[in-house]
Amino acid sequence: MEKEDQEDNFSVWYNEIIEKTGLSDKRYPVKGLNIWPPYGWSLMRNIDEIIRKNFDSKDYKEVNFPTLIPENQFNKEAEHIKGFSNEVYWITHGGEDLLEERLVLRPTSETAMYPIFSLWVRSHADLPLRIYQIVNVFRYETKQTRTFIRVREIHFIEGHTCHEDYESAEKQINDDIEIWKSIADTLALPYIMGKRPDWDKFPGAHYTIGVDTFFPSGRSLQIATIHQYKDNFAKPYDIIYTDENGERKYAHQTTFGISERLVGAIVGIHGDKKGLILPPSVAPIQIIIVPIPGEGVNEYSLLVFNKVKEAGIRIKIDDREQYTPGWKFNDWEEKGIPLRLEIGRKEVENKSVTLAYRTGGKKLMSLEDFIERKQEILNEIQNIMKENAKKKMYSYIKHIDSLEKNDELMPNSIYWCGSRECATVIEEKTGKSILSSTEENGKCIVCGKRGNKTVISKKY
Amino acid sequence: MEKEDQEDNFSVWYNEIIEKTGLSDKRYPVKGLNIWPPYGWSLMRNIDEIIRKNFDSKDYKEVNFPTLIPENQFNKEAEHIKGFSNEVYWITHGGEDLLEERLVLRPTSETAMYPIFSLWVRSHADLPLRIYQIVNVFRYETKQTRTFIRVREIHFIEGHTCHEDYESAEKQINDDIEIWKSIADTLALPYIMGKRPDWDKFPGAHYTIGVDTFFPSGRSLQIATIHQYKDNFAKPYDIIYTDENGERKYAHQTTFGISERLVGAIVGIHGDKKGLILPPSVAPIQIIIVPIPGEGVNEYSLLVFNKVKEAGIRIKIDDREQYTPGWKFNDWEEKGIPLRLEIGRKEVENKSVTLAYRTGGKKLMSLEDFIERKQEILNEIQNIMKENAKKKMYSYIKHIDSLEKNDELMPNSIYWCGSRECATVIEEKTGKSILSSTEENGKCIVCGKRGNKTVISKKY
Repeated sequence: MEKEDQEDNFSVWYNEIIEKTGLSDKRYPVKGLNIWPPYGWSLMRNIDEIIRKNFDSKDYKEVNFPTLIPENQFNKEAEHIKGFSNEVYWITHGGEDLLEERLVLRPTSETAMYPIFSLWVRSHADLPLRIYQIVNVFRYETKQTRTFIRVREIHFIEGHTCHEDYESAEKQINDDIEIWKSIADTLALPYIMGKRPDWDKFPGAHYTIGVDTFFPSGRSLQIATIHQYKDNFAKPYDIIYTDENGERKYAHQTTFGISERLVGAIVGIHGDKKGLILPPSVAPIQIIIVPIPGEGVNEYSLLVFNKVKEAGIRIKIDDREQYTPGWKFNDWEEKGIPLRLEIGRKEVENKSVTLAYRTGGKKLMSLEDFIERKQEILNEIQNIMKENAKKKMYSYIKHIDSLEKNDELMPNSIYWCGSRECATVIEEKTGKSILSSTEENGKCIVCGKRGNKTVISKKY
Repeated sequence: MEKEDQEDNFSVWYNEIIEKTGLSDKRYPVKGLNIWPPYGWSLMRNIDEIIRKNFDSKDYKEVNFPTLIPENQFNKEAEHIKGFSNEVYWITHGGEDLLEERLVLRPTSETAMYPIFSLWVRSHADLPLRIYQIVNVFRYETKQTRTFIRVREIHFIEGHTCHEDYESAEKQINDDIEIWKSIADTLALPYIMGKRPDWDKFPGAHYTIGVDTFFPSGRSLQIATIHQYKDNFAKPYDIIYTDENGERKYAHQTTFGISERLVGAIVGIHGDKKGLILPPSVAPIQIIIVPIPGEGVNEYSLLVFNKVKEAGIRIKIDDREQYTPGWKFNDWEEKGIPLRLEIGRKEVENKSVTLAYRTGGKKLMSLEDFIERKQEILNEIQNIMKENAKKKMYSYIKHIDSLEKNDELMPNSIYWCGSRECATVIEEKTGKSILSSTEENGKCIVCGKRGNKTVISKKY
């Protein structure tokens, strides 16, 4: 009972805090379609900008492909269509007309892009091709929906590349891993990363690298995937180039997917009883000034505001007259603003500010020092968040040497030989899924043969 | 024959230059759905940022609503649905399941947003409500499609507001006009603006203000609309607030729509025989450096590049070895880069740069001067573009005092009394549409009664 409570409690907290703080409005009258109100959308857009910077720095170019895919084009890669056929939306009519060919709302854009890649890629000089887009994709989910985590319209970032051969595509995957590390670092998100078991790879992929993080409920959340496609899609979609010797060859491809799940991860991982805690890197408001009414307070608050604002920091003064300072403290803590400045008569007299860290602790500082060190202080909060989250995540994952010791809700690590048979035993006995393995060796928890350290968990 | 040639020639030029410069790729296998390649998407995104800044400055908040609208919700405002019923895409199936209720791909978001506005707006304290979103909308166009101008998936910017009464909504419309003026100014676009005739207003609107610009073909292009809805939507969608006296009242609403047509307008209005001319404010590359091979040229080019780059200007060096400087000049002129820097031995020796304006003319300048004045020079190009475009547009619109003098292809201005009867005569005799009127008075070209100066044209 207690364990179920733990998960329920987390779910209740998660759902409530999202609506209360204005990250999402779930009252849209279609299941799994939610509204991004200003606060949530501002957070998502700040995350998008971080992602753009990282993709751009590795020579990806941003593009935008159509949302609708003709049925015939969608159906070309057999495994891929099999993987998606039960979860796509079909458009059959335009106005009163029955369409000659049905259209799919993209669940992801391989089948929209690759017929065009076959036109863009002609010679080795066209390679590598690296593009990404930030768009909404659609999946007719039949499972229970959950804001940011399992929805039917998904804010999605997808990278697609083409290369001369398997090795160049492998190098791209290393670049993508670098991109991911930098994004996760900027969002202060801890994670584990590794190859998925073969039966759990993306439809049509040669292999899939999954990135998982863990919620206080004990469940894991897949927050990024990187796929090696080999020439699996190049063949049905005719992505062929002429190499330096004039020989015609199939391109090798990779993809990289990230989604609005990052917002869910930030909520679930950094939040606490008081509400959200947003990383300074992406918080819509990085610093909130709460004036404590008194002589000269408003003028001084405005002075501080202007000095911080001109450095490009996202700062706001809460000058609402109908609320007390204490009420405002709670309100902004709930909304997860990383740093609060309290300014009252004392601060005005001393030319100082009182800093209240959302991660805990208060500090009185001279205004001069604060203006000098403001970015450093935000970075400090970012680092505290990163360390806390990492420690918390690793504390969830206990290593066990017998399936009897499996934790009902929390993830575990085990040694596993890699076989499908042992995986079935593990998954059936624990009710968990195999996520990914590291290089570390030990005896398989089922058969006793040589295995790799592997994390298992219940998934969202 | 000559006149038809004029229009055909423009169409051919327009279609070719768009594909040749990489603004759009029209080879996607569904009519009216085009691909935004990197160059075109970068231009669109720069325009989006200008729009964001302007909406934000007038206290609009950015949001993001779902793409799919349930049929029942879509059908509530009778005139609105009548206006769109023949041009929406219908989703009937999710996977293999027939959906319980059909879903519409939004053609615009009134019917997605307003049921939610009825939850957001409760009291006068919630007003005004001002939100906007930048999304794709979908129209099953049966007319001939044309890139950026008439497409089936449209990159769209839509502002929606709610107010206490008609007068506050009217004030909002004045704000929206200010926003539009600032955007048009930044894009160096000339236009005429005014109320549409009653029979040409937006479905469901009380009145519509249309903004039109003119192409060298003589046709007009509607590039923005601002609508006063009164309480026409508030009634079916129950957008009701309690005023200061506790009385329940319907909100009054406005909307503001802008689209990817802005890209079409930039292409059609500023371009010339050599290709595109992009306003420095939004050009993906503002300055291109073309080195003319010689001693010290590469190092010096890099020095200039770095000095300009660090000021946040979008600059690039064309260091492709397989092309001659002359070839590069043409290439970047075609792509519309506002300013080219030519750097050869002479410039290295004199510590100077040769400036070639895309709007015409060359100038030798000391590097010191150029670094000092670079932003001013870009602004100068922007102003030249604005003046040229304005002069050109007004030269198209000849005033006539008899319908016999109507120009077959080019727009005309006339006096018109405002009656539907006279409009019918005008439209039938000229094959043109009535756009909008100014305050200037004169005798109606049909009935001789008092009329307003009115522009008529063939439309895209």
